[in-house]
Amino acid sequence: MSSKGYACWLEYELASRAAKQAAREWGREIVMDESPQQGPLQTAVNELTIGLEAIIGQRPSIVKDSGQHRHIVVGTSRSPLVALMLTENELEGIGAEGYRIKTVHTTNREAIVLAGGSSKGCLYGVFHLLRLLLTGAALDCLDITEQPKYQLRMINHWDNMDGSIERGYAGRSFLFRNNEVLAGSQRIRDYARLMASIGINGIAINNVNVHKYETLLVTEPYLPLVAVVADVFREYGIRLFLSVNYASPLELGETTTADPLDESVAAWWKTTAENVYRYIPDFGGFVVKADSENRPGPFTYGRDHADGANMLAEALKPYGGLVMWRCFVYNCHQDWRDRLTDRARAAYDHFKPLDGRFMDNVVLQIKNGPMDFQVLEPVSPLFGAMERTNQIMEFQITQEYTGHQIDVCYLIPQWKEILEFDTYMKGKGSTIKEIAAGTVHPYVHCGITAVTNVGDDANWTGHHLAQANLYGYGRLIWNPELTAEEIINEWVLLTFGDNPDVAKTITDILMTSWPTYENYTAPLGVGWMVRPHLHYGVDVDGYEYSKWGTYHFADHTGIGVDRTIGTGTGYTGQYGKTNAELYEGLNTCPDKLLLFFHHVPYTHSLQTGKTVIQHIYDTHFAGVEQVEQWIVRWQELEGKMDAERFVHIAGRLDLQLDNAKQWRDVINTYFYRKSGIYDQGQRVIYV
Amino acid sequence: MSSKGYACWLEYELASRAAKQAAREWGREIVMDESPQQGPLQTAVNELTIGLEAIIGQRPSIVKDSGQHRHIVVGTSRSPLVALMLTENELEGIGAEGYRIKTVHTTNREAIVLAGGSSKGCLYGVFHLLRLLLTGAALDCLDITEQPKYQLRMINHWDNMDGSIERGYAGRSFLFRNNEVLAGSQRIRDYARLMASIGINGIAINNVNVHKYETLLVTEPYLPLVAVVADVFREYGIRLFLSVNYASPLELGETTTADPLDESVAAWWKTTAENVYRYIPDFGGFVVKADSENRPGPFTYGRDHADGANMLAEALKPYGGLVMWRCFVYNCHQDWRDRLTDRARAAYDHFKPLDGRFMDNVVLQIKNGPMDFQVLEPVSPLFGAMERTNQIMEFQITQEYTGHQIDVCYLIPQWKEILEFDTYMKGKGSTIKEIAAGTVHPYVHCGITAVTNVGDDANWTGHHLAQANLYGYGRLIWNPELTAEEIINEWVLLTFGDNPDVAKTITDILMTSWPTYENYTAPLGVGWMVRPHLHYGVDVDGYEYSKWGTYHFADHTGIGVDRTIGTGTGYTGQYGKTNAELYEGLNTCPDKLLLFFHHVPYTHSLQTGKTVIQHIYDTHFAGVEQVEQWIVRWQELEGKMDAERFVHIAGRLDLQLDNAKQWRDVINTYFYRKSGIYDQGQRVIYV
Repeated sequence: MSSKGYACWLEYELASRAAKQAAREWGREIVMDESPQQGPLQTAVNELTIGLEAIIGQRPSIVKDSGQHRHIVVGTSRSPLVALMLTENELEGIGAEGYRIKTVHTTNREAIVLAGGSSKGCLYGVFHLLRLLLTGAALDCLDITEQPKYQLRMINHWDNMDGSIERGYAGRSFLFRNNEVLAGSQRIRDYARLMASIGINGIAINNVNVHKYETLLVTEPYLPLVAVVADVFREYGIRLFLSVNYASPLELGETTTADPLDESVAAWWKTTAENVYRYIPDFGGFVVKADSENRPGPFTYGRDHADGANMLAEALKPYGGLVMWRCFVYNCHQDWRDRLTDRARAAYDHFKPLDGRFMDNVVLQIKNGPMDFQVLEPVSPLFGAMERTNQIMEFQITQEYTGHQIDVCYLIPQWKEILEFDTYMKGKGSTIKEIAAGTVHPYVHCGITAVTNVGDDANWTGHHLAQANLYGYGRLIWNPELTAEEIINEWVLLTFGDNPDVAKTITDILMTSWPTYENYTAPLGVGWMVRPHLHYGVDVDGYEYSKWGTYHFADHTGIGVDRTIGTGTGYTGQYGKTNAELYEGLNTCPDKLLLFFHHVPYTHSLQTGKTVIQHIYDTHFAGVEQVEQWIVRWQELEGKMDAERFVHIAGRLDLQLDNAKQWRDVINTYFYRKSGIYDQGQRVIYV
Repeated sequence: MSSKGYACWLEYELASRAAKQAAREWGREIVMDESPQQGPLQTAVNELTIGLEAIIGQRPSIVKDSGQHRHIVVGTSRSPLVALMLTENELEGIGAEGYRIKTVHTTNREAIVLAGGSSKGCLYGVFHLLRLLLTGAALDCLDITEQPKYQLRMINHWDNMDGSIERGYAGRSFLFRNNEVLAGSQRIRDYARLMASIGINGIAINNVNVHKYETLLVTEPYLPLVAVVADVFREYGIRLFLSVNYASPLELGETTTADPLDESVAAWWKTTAENVYRYIPDFGGFVVKADSENRPGPFTYGRDHADGANMLAEALKPYGGLVMWRCFVYNCHQDWRDRLTDRARAAYDHFKPLDGRFMDNVVLQIKNGPMDFQVLEPVSPLFGAMERTNQIMEFQITQEYTGHQIDVCYLIPQWKEILEFDTYMKGKGSTIKEIAAGTVHPYVHCGITAVTNVGDDANWTGHHLAQANLYGYGRLIWNPELTAEEIINEWVLLTFGDNPDVAKTITDILMTSWPTYENYTAPLGVGWMVRPHLHYGVDVDGYEYSKWGTYHFADHTGIGVDRTIGTGTGYTGQYGKTNAELYEGLNTCPDKLLLFFHHVPYTHSLQTGKTVIQHIYDTHFAGVEQVEQWIVRWQELEGKMDAERFVHIAGRLDLQLDNAKQWRDVINTYFYRKSGIYDQGQRVIYV
C-alpha cells in the first residue's frame, strides 16, 4: 500500500526552491530561553525542527543565543528573550492560544520572533510560520498577530469500537479495532499532529451513538487506554472528549434507573467523572445524544433535557468538564400521512423553552441545519435563539449526504455561507459567525465542531481532494474571515506543490464542486431524494413514505414543503422577524431554498425567470456537464503531478460522473413523468 | 420456548372421538409377512405404529397372522399375504411409489389391506391411511389407488452453511450452523418424516447461491456429514441433492479454469461425483445456478448452458444422478433507460435455442413466472416450449414476495392456476400440469420443485398458517386434481382439530388470502413495487430506476410495461399462438395481468368496466378491509383453540394490517399524486 498523501498538508518535501532558500537563510538556528520538558511548547520546537530539517535538509540547532545573522526566536510571552525582542504593547492581548510572529531587525541581527500567548500559542504559531515559509511569504517583514475566533474548535469522530465508522468513507477506524482502543499507535500521534496544525483543540473520539462496548469507555477496563490517547493529544494541545451513553449506569447494571433526578444515577456519574479525571486531568467532557433516533434519554423518565444535561454537568463541573448536549432530537417514527408534524421544527420546539435552565458548563450542540446535513438547507433557527444557553455549531466534514468522498464536494463555501447568515437576533450583524464566538450573546463556552471524514485509508480521507475539507475546516474555524479561495490556495500549495496548472485545475474543481453537487442532486433545497440509509445515489421517493419526517410532496402539479406560518407548518416563525418574513414570502424566499419553505407548481417562476421544472432540467444537465468538463481538465494534468494521486482522482471522477448521470436521468425522468412538461431545451429525458 | 405446532399436520393427539374409536376397532394389530430391516418399509411400519399408538393410547402388535376380527395388512406387492388378499388385477399398475388401500371382507374377518408398489409406496400409503383415520373416512369400504402425478417431487432449501437462510422467515437453518452440517439431529429426522408424509422424494439441502463453505460440501471434509443426512432421508424415501458452485474446481484451486470443455474440469467433476456416490449411493444430483445474478457459469468461457450442464451430467450419468440446471438467467445489470431489453424474455431467449442439446439426465429448472415469484405474473413461456429437454417447474413456498410469513398468503390457489394454464403446445389440454408430468412431451425426468419456507422456529414456518403452504405443496404435487379447499380442509382438521368455527375461519382466511395480498400490493400484475432487496413492504419506485430490469413505467398519464409484439418488447411472441394473441390484444388480455403486458392510461376501462385508476383505489381499500374482517373473525376464536397459536396468529394479523394500510395509503397516494384523478368513492387518500 502506498502512502502518498499520508502527510497531507505537512508534505514538506514539496517545498519550492525559494522556500528552501528562505529556510536556509532563517532557519539554521532556533533560539529559546525556555526549557520545555513535555507538552505543546516541546511539540512546537520539535515541529519547527522537523519542518526546517525537511525543507533545508539539515537539522537546525536549538540555542540560547544565536551565532547566525538571521534566526528564529521562539518563546511564550513569559520568556525574557521574547520580552527583550517585542515591546509589552506588542505582546498585549495575544490570548492563551494566540501568537505574534514578527521580524525584528536590530543593528547587526535579524530575527523572526514567534511569541505564543502560551505554549499552545507557540505550537499554532510554528505551524503558521512553516506555512508562511512554504507558501513563499516575505520573511523579512513579517508582522502577524493571530488568535482563534472560536474558543472550542472541535472534531467529532463517529468511530465505533468494532472498528467501523458510522458515515465513514475512508476505511476503518484508527482509534478502535475489535472493541479495543488502539492506544500507543503512531497513526494516532500523526493524527494529533495534523489536527494541531490546523488549530483543533478538542476531539471526541467515539460515535455519538454509543453501543455496548463504547459505554464502557468511561469505566476502568478501558480508561487507562483512553488516557494513553489523551496523553498524546495533550502534547498537541488537544483535549479528549468521550461520547457517553445516557443510560450508562442502568445498562451497566449499576443502577435500576437512568432518571436524571435519581440520586443513585447522579452519584454514579459523579464517581465516574472523578475516575475519568484521575486518568485524564484535562478531560474535555461528554458528548451526549439523548432521546434521539432511538437512543435513551431523560424523556423516558418524564424529565426534560435540562434535567438530563445538568445532572451530567454537575458531575463534570468540579474538574472543568463540559457537557456537549446534542439537539438532534425529533420524532423518528413520524407518519408521512401527518402533514402537520414538521421535523424541521423539532430542535427549536424542544430546546428554546429551556433557555436559562442549563448549567454554564453545558453546551448545546446544534447541527447547522434543521434537518440533517443536506447539501443545502437553511440555517437552524435555534442557533442564537437562546441567549442564556451555551451553543456550539455542528458541521459535517464527512460527506454523508454530499458524495461519500467518491464525488468531490468542497464544503468550505457551504460553511462560510452558514457562518455569514445574519439572524438579526440583536440587530444587523448578529451572524452565526459572531454567535458561535459568543459576541452576540455572552456565552461561557461556545465554538464550532464537526463530524470528521478520516479513517485508516492511507491518505486519511479516501478521496485525496477530501483532505481540503478537513484542512479548510480547521483553518476556517480559526479564522472565519479567510475566503474559500484563500484556503484552497494554501492547501493546494502545501499538498500538491507549486505547479500552476495543477493548482488552477484543483482550485477550479473544488470551487465549483458544491454547486455542482447541488445541481445534479435534489433541487431547490428540498433535499432527501437519496437512497435510504445509504445516503448516496438517487431515490426520489426513497424517504417519501417513511417514518423519518423527510418529504418532498411532489405530485402532478407541484412540489415542496409548505413551512409557512400562513398555510404550512409554521416553521418560518422560528426565525427572527427579518428572516421569517424573507422565508414566508413566496416572492422573497431565495430560489435555492424555495422548496424547503414552499409548495409550488412546477410552472412557478423563480427569481431567475425560469420555471421550477425548467430549473430542475437545466441544473441537472448542467451538473453532469460540469463533471464532464472536470474530467477533461483533469486529464490535462497527466505528468504534471505524481501518478498515484493523478490516477486515484481520475478514477473517482469517473465514478462521480456515473453518479451524476444517474441522478440527472432519474430526477429528470421522475419529474417529466410526474408533470408531463417537456424540457424546453429538448434534451434527452428518458420518458 | 413452546413447541406448539412442531408436529404440524402429524399432531395425532388431536384425533376426534370417532377417529379414536375407529382406530381401536381396526388398529390393534398390523399384519405383515415381510421382514423389513431398514428403509421405507420399516419406516412405514414404525409410522403406522406411532400413529395408532398416539390415537388409541396403546401400542398395536405386529403379527404374522391376526387374532383380531378387524386388522390392518401392510405389504409390498411382492408380499404373499398381500397377493392373497388382493387380486393380480387389483395390484396392477400401482407403480413403484403408488399404493392401494382396500377394505377386504372375508367370511369372518375384515382387513384394511395397504399394498405398496414398493416399500416407498407403503410409506406413502401409511400416511394416507392415518389421514383417512383422522379425517373420519368410513374405513369399512375403502378402495383407493393412488400414485403420484409427478416423478420428481422436490424441495429446495436456500440454507447457507453459516446458518442463515436466504429469503427465510422462520428462523435459522436446522441443517447448518457455523459452517458445519448439523448431521445426526433429531430435527432433521423429524423434518424428513414431515416431508415423507406429504410425498416429497428429493431435497436439495443448500442454497443455490453457493458460497465459500458450501462449495466444499461435495468434497471430503464435509461429505461424510452430508452422508449422515442422506442416510436419514433415505429411510423416508427421500434422495438428497446438493447445490453446487459451477466454478468449484477453479475456486478450490484444483484447476486453472472452469471452462466446461476443459478436460481437467470435466475430470475433476467425474472424480468428485464418484466420491459423492461412494458416500451417498442414491445421491440425487446437483442443482446449479450458473451465469445468474453474478454467479459464475459457462458464459465466462464463451460456452453455452448446454456445454455447462452436459459436462456435469456426464459426471453424474454412471450413477443415475441428475443435473437440475436453473434457468433464472438474465442481465442483472440492466440500464433502466433501455426500454428494449426485457428481463421477462431472458429465460426463453437463453434456453429455447438449445432444445435437444442437453443430455437426458439434465433437467431445466424453470421458475413459474418469467420474472421472479411475484404475487401475480404470467406463466413462464419456456415451460413446455422445449420438446426435447427435461423440465421441472420451480415454485416458491417461502413468502419472499408474498408477505414474509408475517402476512397470510395461502399459495395453493396460485400454483393451481399455474398448473391449469394451457400452453396449447400440442393442442388444447397441454397444461403445465401435464407438461410437468411428461405427458405432453415425453420427458425422461420431470416434475415440480419449490423453495421451502422452513427454519428452526419451533413451528417450522414462522407463521403457523404458513404450514398450510408446505403441506399443500406436497399434497398438490402428489395429486394436482385436489382443490385448494380440499387441501385446506384436510390440513385444518389435522393441524387444528375438528372445531367447526376454527376450521371455518381458518379456511375462509386462507382461501381469501392470496387475492387479498394481491389487492393491497402491486396492481394488475405489474409487480415489483416492493422495498428493494428486502421484498417486504411498499416502495413503488424502489426498483424503478435500478439495474434489475423490473419496472412499471408509471407516468402522469398511465402505467404498465408494453410487452406486445406490435409496439413493445415482443415478449408475448414467446407464447404459443393462442396465448400470444390473448396477451397481445389490449381487450383480450386478462385484467389481472394487464399491466404486465400493456402500458395503458389510468382511464383505460378494464373488462370489469372500471378504470385502471379506480381499480387501483378500490382494490387497495378492499385489501385492508379484508384484513380488518379477518381480525374480527379471528377474535371470535378466542377460547376455541389453544391460546398459544391463537395469540401468535392474532399478533401476525395485526402486523399484516399495518403492512396492508401502508401499502394502501402509499399506493393510493402515489397514483393520486401522479394522475391527479380522484377516487370516485371519495375515501381518504393522503394527497
